[in-house]
Amino acid sequence: MSSVIELLKSHRSIRKFTDQPIKSELFEDLVKAGQAAATSSFLQGSTIVRIVNAETRQQIAEIAGGQSHVVTSAEFMVFCADLKRAGNYCEEYDKSFEGDYTEHFIIATVDVALMAQNIVTAAESEGLGICYIGGIRNNPGAVSELLRLPKGVYPVFGLCLGYPDQNPEIKPRLPVSVILKEEVYNDTGDREVITEYDQQIREYYRSRTGGGHEISWSEQVASLLSEKSRPHMKGFLEEQGFKFR
Amino acid sequence: MSSVIELLKSHRSIRKFTDQPIKSELFEDLVKAGQAAATSSFLQGSTIVRIVNAETRQQIAEIAGGQSHVVTSAEFMVFCADLKRAGNYCEEYDKSFEGDYTEHFIIATVDVALMAQNIVTAAESEGLGICYIGGIRNNPGAVSELLRLPKGVYPVFGLCLGYPDQNPEIKPRLPVSVILKEEVYNDTGDREVITEYDQQIREYYRSRTGGGHEISWSEQVASLLSEKSRPHMKGFLEEQGFKFR
Repeated sequence: MSSVIELLKSHRSIRKFTDQPIKSELFEDLVKAGQAAATSSFLQGSTIVRIVNAETRQQIAEIAGGQSHVVTSAEFMVFCADLKRAGNYCEEYDKSFEGDYTEHFIIATVDVALMAQNIVTAAESEGLGICYIGGIRNNPGAVSELLRLPKGVYPVFGLCLGYPDQNPEIKPRLPVSVILKEEVYNDTGDREVITEYDQQIREYYRSRTGGGHEISWSEQVASLLSEKSRPHMKGFLEEQGFKFR
Repeated sequence: MSSVIELLKSHRSIRKFTDQPIKSELFEDLVKAGQAAATSSFLQGSTIVRIVNAETRQQIAEIAGGQSHVVTSAEFMVFCADLKRAGNYCEEYDKSFEGDYTEHFIIATVDVALMAQNIVTAAESEGLGICYIGGIRNNPGAVSELLRLPKGVYPVFGLCLGYPDQNPEIKPRLPVSVILKEEVYNDTGDREVITEYDQQIREYYRSRTGGGHEISWSEQVASLLSEKSRPHMKGFLEEQGFKFR
């Protein structure tokens, strides 16, 4: 197995960082590694807003539900799906803008995620730790105002980067048989496998919290899907120009 | 710069493969490297359907617009966003299912992309080449039928993996200043930088096609956003249970 595969498998989120800064040449190199990821139809539909200002970081940390690592990480970036940049040129080339279809939303969102994951891998290969911040979607309107995001651009997630000051355990993933199917989708028999996995996850939480908190994977994710999760997203995105046509 | 950053920066899509197979232990290891990627709220909302059957591959190649590498690659997988797996447990835990919000769609789509990009990096670190196949979204209904995808699951993209039988040039990306912003989104001055980049991309296409085809980046992406791109996606996704509430 290559050391890169080992590196990828050793990922865990880091939420406590030393105050060591990231050298600017390295930071730029991480971004370039991100840009090298595949991009659908060569759209390059991602824009990163790097936040240095402590006050802005503090506000975003609060929006994200009080995640102090947004403030304390060496670098914090907001990854945006960007259809404006390309859309700017429709008029120039005498074309009408139609870039607000669901498909365009998917293309740009996937572009952002591929780029971000490359940056994560590049960062971890340099000894950095990372934490994605989906919590910015708690109030995407406020984040967009802070970052002055124009229409055609939406904040997908944030990312903290820094040198780790903690060494958490790796969180066990679902058995491969559950997520990898052959020829067709068939989940017969998965419940049995997941029941064992549920037990493993209960143990994981128990050992991390000294017995204080334990929940199975299936119960945890059932909760997520029983919530009207961030019901403002649709309206926010439409307002921002993503029409889901 | 780490060798991992060099690896990431050396990415280009491969569309011509040798007939060397990928050893099954390596293939499973790639999938595990994929699973190690971050997953929002621990949802693990991705399912991979691995396609070996030549007839199915042929049908998908045609759906994707005649991409023969879907047939000739050592491995071809369809990456699916999966809210069914977690949704299955709502009833078991006496919860009502609400997992059809736009937010859930974003979570699962991003989960899939992060996992896939880890698999890509793992594969490339082992000397494999890859090509994403967004073209499966030309007819996501037909793909879903072939793969018997249930409601709550949608095919995001395909991925070809195999040992490269070509060595294409790396496609130049936008200058960092265009995609990385400080504190706020500000694209003043970007047109000038992009005009230079447009010239670079014209040269890239000219050298690859012996002068036959040349288009600037801005014109290419303006075209994409002037198309009613895959207008069936919204209806397909709603049918598949993603309601964009």
